[in-house]
Amino acid sequence: MQELTIIKIGGKVVENDTELRAVLQGFTQIKGHKILVHGGGKRATEMLPQLGIEPKMINGRRITDAATLEVVTMVYAGLINKKIVSLLQSMDCQAIGLSGADLNSIQSHKRIVKDIDYGFAGDIDAVNTDAIRGLLDMNATPVFCAITHDKQGQLLNTNADTIAATLAANLAAHYDVTLMLCFEKNGVLSDPKNDDSVIRVINDMTYQSYKQSGIILAGMIPKMDNAFFALSKGVKNVQICGTAKVKGEGVPFPIVRHN
Amino acid sequence: MQELTIIKIGGKVVENDTELRAVLQGFTQIKGHKILVHGGGKRATEMLPQLGIEPKMINGRRITDAATLEVVTMVYAGLINKKIVSLLQSMDCQAIGLSGADLNSIQSHKRIVKDIDYGFAGDIDAVNTDAIRGLLDMNATPVFCAITHDKQGQLLNTNADTIAATLAANLAAHYDVTLMLCFEKNGVLSDPKNDDSVIRVINDMTYQSYKQSGIILAGMIPKMDNAFFALSKGVKNVQICGTAKVKGEGVPFPIVRHN
Repeated sequence: MQELTIIKIGGKVVENDTELRAVLQGFTQIKGHKILVHGGGKRATEMLPQLGIEPKMINGRRITDAATLEVVTMVYAGLINKKIVSLLQSMDCQAIGLSGADLNSIQSHKRIVKDIDYGFAGDIDAVNTDAIRGLLDMNATPVFCAITHDKQGQLLNTNADTIAATLAANLAAHYDVTLMLCFEKNGVLSDPKNDDSVIRVINDMTYQSYKQSGIILAGMIPKMDNAFFALSKGVKNVQICGTAKVKGEGVPFPIVRHN
Repeated sequence: MQELTIIKIGGKVVENDTELRAVLQGFTQIKGHKILVHGGGKRATEMLPQLGIEPKMINGRRITDAATLEVVTMVYAGLINKKIVSLLQSMDCQAIGLSGADLNSIQSHKRIVKDIDYGFAGDIDAVNTDAIRGLLDMNATPVFCAITHDKQGQLLNTNADTIAATLAANLAAHYDVTLMLCFEKNGVLSDPKNDDSVIRVINDMTYQSYKQSGIILAGMIPKMDNAFFALSKGVKNVQICGTAKVKGEGVPFPIVRHN
């Protein structure tokens, strides 16, 4: 099978022009097929009050009302996505920016309301692997923003880690997939105050024990769950790491494994 | 050769939800390959002061400074493009939203400064027909916003009529192309106060005489020039018309012809 590397970069990278260019330069050097998924950063949140929209958060999570959805769509699918695509094109990478609505590539449903109504947040139902494979066959490099749709005309705000992991899971039957979920730390740290305390390998068992001992905390748990989900669906390599890895500067820690 | 219909819709359509849905519904009914190009509407202009950016106009034309470019990129490539794509997808049309940066589909250069510095306005140099044909071969329907790039990492604000006409001109060697430049009137009017005074056919000679007699005025001249440019490059059918045509309600007036 052909190799496919799927890399998710977070909002912190997107906000720093020098860092973004360095990461994209590293990304273009990766051999084989590749897909980039990018987060949103603070720009949308900063813009909300300027546009007279009150940011709504519950337990630190954004509530996406209709007005907020318009702003995140503008910023994620417009401003950030096209900036990344134009930079990649300047590096001779045949990038194509996508939301989940484009080619119906990622279909989701509006999150069911249980305790909290998250508004226009999407939970993914299906990936159009044929369409994405068609683009990869054209030697195009898809660049996904964190917006999906419900195929009924509704756009939905969707977690970028989940998009990356779900793409990886759905494409694992067709490619040898490497998934890298990048974030601002060098990796999962055993001591949050020490950037060098990266845990080199995490497996199902050590993950449970890290969770119980509180070493892996709230914000990291959904990311880890996405990593293990991808592994369970046949993704060959899963790494949670800093962007140094993409720039070719670091070793791939930590690797997430079943055992 | 296969048929390809390229339709440009203006900002007025984009701003009216009911009208937009009706036009898109009509668009999906067109047989054969198709491409949609959409203008921007007033939304970006309205947003500028909210974001503390002073709109700059010279002789009624927008000057795109760096801050304005960010806003038009957000609104055109993000908000409007993804709204149209998600609506088309809900109508079972395999739409894919594109700027000129995506797949390097439309490469342009920053307009050379003569009397007026238009800022980040793009004049088109090249169309990547291979990439667009690749998408059409996948039975995808490209939806272009009015943003292009210079392949050096710079996005550029570009006239939507010119994009539609240039796409038509470049694809005319591969398809039987029909180009429809839609706008808010029923067509080119011989009496601007009478919506029924549509000129049914305009050719090179009558165009010159309409211009000289002042029947075809300033705003319409670039649109007409785009129409004649497309004709000169082998585009089979060129129409300047209202959106009624797309909705299947009207007859195709006016047709623009060489003679």
